[in-house]
Amino acid sequence: MQMAKVIGMVTSTVKVKDIKGVTLLVIQPVNSKHELLGTPIVAADVFGAGVGEYVFYAKSKEGAMNLPIPTSCVDAGIVGIIDSVHTL
Amino acid sequence: MQMAKVIGMVTSTVKVKDIKGVTLLVIQPVNSKHELLGTPIVAADVFGAGVGEYVFYAKSKEGAMNLPIPTSCVDAGIVGIIDSVHTL
Amino acid sequence: MQMAKVIGMVTSTVKVKDIKGVTLLVIQPVNSKHELLGTPIVAADVFGAGVGEYVFYAKSKEGAMNLPIPTSCVDAGIVGIIDSVHTL
Amino acid sequence: MQMAKVIGMVTSTVKVKDIKGVTLLVIQPVNSKHELLGTPIVAADVFGAGVGEYVFYAKSKEGAMNLPIPTSCVDAGIVGIIDSVHTL
Amino acid sequence: MQMAKVIGMVTSTVKVKDIKGVTLLVIQPVNSKHELLGTPIVAADVFGAGVGEYVFYAKSKEGAMNLPIPTSCVDAGIVGIIDSVHTL
Repeated sequence: MQMAKVIGMVTSTVKVKDIKGVTLLVIQPVNSKHELLGTPIVAADVFGAGVGEYVFYAKSKEGAMNLPIPTSCVDAGIVGIIDSVHTL
Repeated sequence: MQMAKVIGMVTSTVKVKDIKGVTLLVIQPVNSKHELLGTPIVAADVFGAGVGEYVFYAKSKEGAMNLPIPTSCVDAGIVGIIDSVHTL
Repeated sequence: MQMAKVIGMVTSTVKVKDIKGVTLLVIQPVNSKHELLGTPIVAADVFGAGVGEYVFYAKSKEGAMNLPIPTSCVDAGIVGIIDSVHTL
Repeated sequence: MQMAKVIGMVTSTVKVKDIKGVTLLVIQPVNSKHELLGTPIVAADVFGAGVGEYVFYAKSKEGAMNLPIPTSCVDAGIVGIIDSVHTL
Repeated sequence: MQMAKVIGMVTSTVKVKDIKGVTLLVIQPVNSKHELLGTPIVAADVFGAGVGEYVFYAKSKEGAMNLPIPTSCVDAGIVGIIDSVHTL
């Protein structure tokens, strides 16, 4: 999984039926020092992560496994909200 | 998923049978400020997204799950058309 | 999928049995202006794409779905030969 | 698989149920000379790898196959602890 | 698949049971001119590829399909040893 900061939300009317009602967050990958990295992505969320919170997310098929419809065509999903990161 | 702008279309006569009739868009990944990023890719579309519109798409097997033949060898597909992006 | 130019061929005697007889092309990813990008990869081909032609290909499991043995351990395969690309 | 150094641990209260009790390490990819590379990731561990140790890990679905619940939405997992690397 | 040069071997005592006895090579991705590219990875090998030889390998689930236990959590495996590459 990768760590990311929640930075926003996407609204979409025309979309795959299987994800109607699923929150689509815009998240920005970060390193263990909370520095922003690379490109923001759109990830499904069922934990209610808020803007400004840090999360870790899974990519590919794994990203959808926690959704109401696990076979939906989602390739990034929040796995958990980070309490803290302990590094050397 | 990643955000992208639709920038064109591919035509192909000799191709995998399973995607005959499926629209093949050329899309350019973007960040949440609509700045163009990286390399354009070819993605299948069933929503009728037009050139200039912003979409979010899934990669790998998830990209094909919304097609008439979900097991077709497509590794990128439009998941929805973006109405708006709200970021901090 | 990504766009690529066919730039060569790989010959291999010692290899996975499931791909005996399958053509292994060396292809170079390109953008929509036909500019070469990144690293050439080895992709399976069943369409007879020739050196110099432009193709689009799928990665991961999707890349093998069009082969005689779809479960073979191939992670990149030609999906179609490009006739033309229309961009803005 | 890729080689990495264990550099820390993530704690998370709100997370996918399937990974309750699974250790979540922060690992930093390295090359064969133990030089740090790219971005640290969060990987599940069932081997008890300690901070400072070198490991190799698998990504995507393969990363979860060694967990108590192999279908959990984890996309990176430790495959083994490295004793030594012999290179030219 | 990608081309790579075999540059070493990893030894690991504590590892996933399913890969006991499988050779773990350190391979360095190369382009079609044999120039080294990017980061070395750890790939499973059942062909006896030796240090200095050129190979092509598959990533993700496809990388494990040729192993004694195809469902093992390996995400990179040698598909064949390269005899020669013909490019323009």
